[in-house]
Amino acid sequence: MKFVTFYNPEGQIRAGWLDSEKVYDMKLASKGALPESMAEFLKNSDENLSIVKGLMEDKERLPFYSEEEIRLTAPLPNPTSFRDFVAFETHVKNATKRSGDTVAPEWYEMPIFYFSNTNSMKGPEEDIKRPDRCLRLDFELELACVIGKEGKNIKADQTEEYIFGYTILNDWSARDIQMKEMKVLLGPAKGKDFATSIGPFIVTKDELEPYKTGKAFDLEMTARVNDHEITKGNFKEVYYSFGEMIERASEDVTLYPGDIIGSGTVGFGCIMEIGAETQDWLAPGDEVELQITALGTLKNRIV
Amino acid sequence: MKFVTFYNPEGQIRAGWLDSEKVYDMKLASKGALPESMAEFLKNSDENLSIVKGLMEDKERLPFYSEEEIRLTAPLPNPTSFRDFVAFETHVKNATKRSGDTVAPEWYEMPIFYFSNTNSMKGPEEDIKRPDRCLRLDFELELACVIGKEGKNIKADQTEEYIFGYTILNDWSARDIQMKEMKVLLGPAKGKDFATSIGPFIVTKDELEPYKTGKAFDLEMTARVNDHEITKGNFKEVYYSFGEMIERASEDVTLYPGDIIGSGTVGFGCIMEIGAETQDWLAPGDEVELQITALGTLKNRIV
Repeated sequence: MKFVTFYNPEGQIRAGWLDSEKVYDMKLASKGALPESMAEFLKNSDENLSIVKGLMEDKERLPFYSEEEIRLTAPLPNPTSFRDFVAFETHVKNATKRSGDTVAPEWYEMPIFYFSNTNSMKGPEEDIKRPDRCLRLDFELELACVIGKEGKNIKADQTEEYIFGYTILNDWSARDIQMKEMKVLLGPAKGKDFATSIGPFIVTKDELEPYKTGKAFDLEMTARVNDHEITKGNFKEVYYSFGEMIERASEDVTLYPGDIIGSGTVGFGCIMEIGAETQDWLAPGDEVELQITALGTLKNRIV
Repeated sequence: MKFVTFYNPEGQIRAGWLDSEKVYDMKLASKGALPESMAEFLKNSDENLSIVKGLMEDKERLPFYSEEEIRLTAPLPNPTSFRDFVAFETHVKNATKRSGDTVAPEWYEMPIFYFSNTNSMKGPEEDIKRPDRCLRLDFELELACVIGKEGKNIKADQTEEYIFGYTILNDWSARDIQMKEMKVLLGPAKGKDFATSIGPFIVTKDELEPYKTGKAFDLEMTARVNDHEITKGNFKEVYYSFGEMIERASEDVTLYPGDIIGSGTVGFGCIMEIGAETQDWLAPGDEVELQITALGTLKNRIV
């Protein structure tokens, strides 16, 4: 299943799912048995998912919108938390090399993350405003998982039941602002708080089963700027699995349905790594498309 | 006014206010005109505050609880975001000295913050569980402000109307976990995500007017461990005002009612700064009391 959040023809934000180019409003289709928002849906995700599957057995009778009638926003507009890890070795190597440093040995001991802003989520085809003081705007190509069940001290090999699904994540980064603030050693905050894109949909975990390989997934990850492909990676290169990331995140801390966990950038999955001599920093008018196998394409325009 | 969130005698979480040792449930006292939670109250804070003041003009007629009948929890149990700044020069000097470093010049250019976990808020008298792997548990004595109005690109001298009130904040820190993760340069996350205490109440901004001095407030800040005073500071020593912190936080980013902004630790306001040779790291059984003029006492026990 592919879950979406969208503006209906009346301009109201509604949650639902996408199937064969039809968009189903979950509350309408279930005659009120399902909630209006993805956040509410996730609080009872197992039972709600069964209701959806039941409804779809007789899908010809359900009301739907065509994709032209609605406009997609972030599939989960207000996550309960947003942790972004740095789980790809190539990315951490490239990032530290740029600042003349080497990778800290601690990176190899445990998956490391920072918290980011949950209140600036953007959806597919929504515009991204470049921060006023930023001249080095970058994208970051990531896979994210969405938590569907409350849990604490979850072991890596038991995380499967806590994951609801996956989505593409673009962790927009104002590199000039970020590099400056990080000198104070509190990590990135202002350099990344203005926007994070997710979408176009959240795919339920069962749809990624066919791509499973070892502890990761065999999923191609590509980035295009103005229709020109500039990055090609694969999620199977990841050093830490989502299982390991969730084990770390949930140690002594409760995770909640609606939490989002980003993988961090795939190797060479941003301009900082490719080099601004090869690909200019993003500027108003540029269009960035991130594509991951089975997860669709997440497109945004810079303004 | 002093706003609180509490368990009522039926064990339900309710929001209200404290006046002359009486606790008023806002929904009950207003016969449903006011909401059940502080988060909802803040979404319309100006109007709701007028309703409260109107009700209190005839306070003898209002139903109330004695303090013994209820149990306080965090006055805002689920903030919409939590940014923690490092706004005291003495703290940043002491913290960098400990790691054999000097303060980055960038610290003097702009107030710097990181995002922390909004889902681990604890109230006064709630127990704090020391993380399993932590042997160097610390407190941090801070003042926090609570946003009461949505805004973006707010200038420092215009921030007053966006602030609803203030509260004491204890940014519990697992120093061993924090120091290790910070080697990867993404800032503190796992070292601080297990608990943050706020309370005992949120005092509305008008109550701090008498303490105003320059861009700060003349408020004594003290910390006691097991009834022994170990820190005495004053908020007037702050280098960046809440106005400046809010200007920074809201640059290109919308702040929402229910956002919490921490000042960072007052100089010598934690064991790391005092030195573990003078005050042991916290262990199960220890009690930590933070007190700030006009803001009450925030007490927690380590388990």
